[in-house]
Amino acid sequence: MGFSNQPVNSMSGNLILENDIAAAAKVDRFNVNGVSCDVRNKGDDRLDLCMVHSISSCTAAGVFTKNDVQAAPVSISRQLLAKGDTFHGFVCNSGNANACTGEQGLRDAEAMSLEASRQANAPARSFLVCSTGRIGEFLPMDRIVPGIQKCAGMLDSLPESGERAAQAILTSDTRPKGCLAKWEMEGEELTIGGFAKGAGMIEPNMATMLAFLLTSVNIKQGLLQEVLADAVENSFNRITIDGDMSTNDTVLLLANGISENPISEKTPQALEDFREALGRTCLDLAEKVVADGERITKVVRVEVEGASSDADAQKVGRCIGNSLLVKSSWYGADPNWGRLVHAAGYARVGLKMEKVDLYYQDVPALLAGTPQTKNRTAWKAVVSKGRFTIRLNLNLGIGSCTILSTDLTEGYVDFNKSE
Amino acid sequence: MGFSNQPVNSMSGNLILENDIAAAAKVDRFNVNGVSCDVRNKGDDRLDLCMVHSISSCTAAGVFTKNDVQAAPVSISRQLLAKGDTFHGFVCNSGNANACTGEQGLRDAEAMSLEASRQANAPARSFLVCSTGRIGEFLPMDRIVPGIQKCAGMLDSLPESGERAAQAILTSDTRPKGCLAKWEMEGEELTIGGFAKGAGMIEPNMATMLAFLLTSVNIKQGLLQEVLADAVENSFNRITIDGDMSTNDTVLLLANGISENPISEKTPQALEDFREALGRTCLDLAEKVVADGERITKVVRVEVEGASSDADAQKVGRCIGNSLLVKSSWYGADPNWGRLVHAAGYARVGLKMEKVDLYYQDVPALLAGTPQTKNRTAWKAVVSKGRFTIRLNLNLGIGSCTILSTDLTEGYVDFNKSE
Repeated sequence: MGFSNQPVNSMSGNLILENDIAAAAKVDRFNVNGVSCDVRNKGDDRLDLCMVHSISSCTAAGVFTKNDVQAAPVSISRQLLAKGDTFHGFVCNSGNANACTGEQGLRDAEAMSLEASRQANAPARSFLVCSTGRIGEFLPMDRIVPGIQKCAGMLDSLPESGERAAQAILTSDTRPKGCLAKWEMEGEELTIGGFAKGAGMIEPNMATMLAFLLTSVNIKQGLLQEVLADAVENSFNRITIDGDMSTNDTVLLLANGISENPISEKTPQALEDFREALGRTCLDLAEKVVADGERITKVVRVEVEGASSDADAQKVGRCIGNSLLVKSSWYGADPNWGRLVHAAGYARVGLKMEKVDLYYQDVPALLAGTPQTKNRTAWKAVVSKGRFTIRLNLNLGIGSCTILSTDLTEGYVDFNKSE
Repeated sequence: MGFSNQPVNSMSGNLILENDIAAAAKVDRFNVNGVSCDVRNKGDDRLDLCMVHSISSCTAAGVFTKNDVQAAPVSISRQLLAKGDTFHGFVCNSGNANACTGEQGLRDAEAMSLEASRQANAPARSFLVCSTGRIGEFLPMDRIVPGIQKCAGMLDSLPESGERAAQAILTSDTRPKGCLAKWEMEGEELTIGGFAKGAGMIEPNMATMLAFLLTSVNIKQGLLQEVLADAVENSFNRITIDGDMSTNDTVLLLANGISENPISEKTPQALEDFREALGRTCLDLAEKVVADGERITKVVRVEVEGASSDADAQKVGRCIGNSLLVKSSWYGADPNWGRLVHAAGYARVGLKMEKVDLYYQDVPALLAGTPQTKNRTAWKAVVSKGRFTIRLNLNLGIGSCTILSTDLTEGYVDFNKSE
């Protein structure tokens, strides 16, 4: 489960997280599938369109990119969420982002939603819509509409259909990413099934990040939105720069409410358990997104503590996690604490060098700003690993934040030098 | 002269800028040189210590890094400038940054200043001090002090001494960088001689940037500081992220006042001419720093206009100029307007896609947000060049800013993966 290995103290109901790329198919009364409709017009059979359909009507929540430039499906899904009460699913294509496509793009995104609703025999406008892929080209609706028709005819809850759905949203990802969470509430098993796509280098991330979450929880829309926003803030937003999101970034959550036990502020423990389960699911998917970053070789957890505020800690973590020099040194397995401190210093949060403690895993590199050079061999051993933690204590206050980052490789540059 | 090819309209005295790495030796009554004192203890004869000595006492101004972590020589030079009235020069070593070196580092920086003053027969504390190179190691004072003694004995105004000084401050730069500005005032020739070092990828820059400027101008300290701050803001600060400076970044300006014509607010044209000359000198050096970025293959001028404010334009320019995906696409000569717009959008200045005009040199790529795909071949031709300009008009207001950036290459990552 990557880095999320801390015990869930608050949990009353034995949370189990399973690494399951077919997770979406395993939540009761959701049917899913993925098909190929050749969005990119390459004549291949790459899976590039997926649908999720809920037999029961769902409450829905969404978190979207904050980029000034928003892709058409983001605008349409926002509108649908703002106007609609209940939803029955979503449709998502890969290969074309439907971004920077003007009025035509908005019409196409709306047409995808309408066609998916119609083909699933669901009310009009009850399907949300996402796209990811190339920017600035119109969607090939002559292939996407038949794709929706085909996919709608194949919706079921077989594990292979869940896998196909998780596969169909990918772009430069090397593997599908899924997570199934299960926990108990009053003797009933509740579930969240999630799948996601990432790639790009995540920080600074302009590659689209998509995550889809399905749950059996019974909860009102306003509270669902709040719980989702918190979960995203502490997971997907810890792997990407604020304001640095792509035109298409989207996290959608559908709750079909088939659970017999409604969750609300009046059931604080159940609500807390759901928060925990959703938070852990999002964190698991976020970690999988980082770990599959384009051509990366290392995943690094940057823990900043002792800042004057959580916001300050986040600034420091992002400066470190986004520094090209720091990322390059990780790639070279160079435990370069000088570059780390450099990067922390330009966050400009009043860092005092003489107070800084820095650890590679548990090995001190700096204590009160003084290099612990006797540990040099131990630092090198840590930074040579594929996953490690760097902990920086500013000793200024109680603010903290954890950022997940990666190294920067020659392969990344090569991969991105042309489309 | 790189990109600074606009006519200097305000100039009354025929400004001439010369590309001259020996420029420091060509300003009257300054003596300079550079020596090898094996700062890195590698037994090589790399030039790594330089001194500049003014026979006359100088007014001095300085602009320093805003990083929370400031190297010892930055602290000491700041203190000297705050306390002192007149100065006689500076001393600078490369190979060791004297950063993150605590109390010992401060003592060493002060000792460098004192030793340089003494050896030049100048008043105590009349030499400013800089260092650049590796972080976190104490200066080898047993080699630096003899280096200062040696250099002080070789100070003169021969061109080769100017070249050696410019060479001695370099780290991963591939070549020395100098600029000589000359203009006339009341029949008298005034000069500014400057030299600089850069390297690193500049954006995000953690590599030390140093620039030294010497002039014959006769001007009071407060005004000198103001003119320098303006010049730096529009040159060196246009190639580096705000707050993203290294622990050692320093720009120093010494004015020996031998000119017979004092410059002040009471001589507005002469003051304006000096502003122009200093601004152009700094811009020229800044461009040379960018063009010598580590392993870059392209220099890109990003002109943002039509923003609601200059500050907004700067945010957009920096987002574009620092985007790894944009920089990688420049490297691959891929005219990827989608990534550019993406990056502009996450500056979050209220960009409206339907208003955006984007040009590669003079070739429109987007007009009112609509791709001009008929020009695709022409875009590709522009982005294939080693130097080109990208112009983005947001059509929201009159704010503008120009940022100089570079591509991101596999070579950069390889170069920085270990020290």
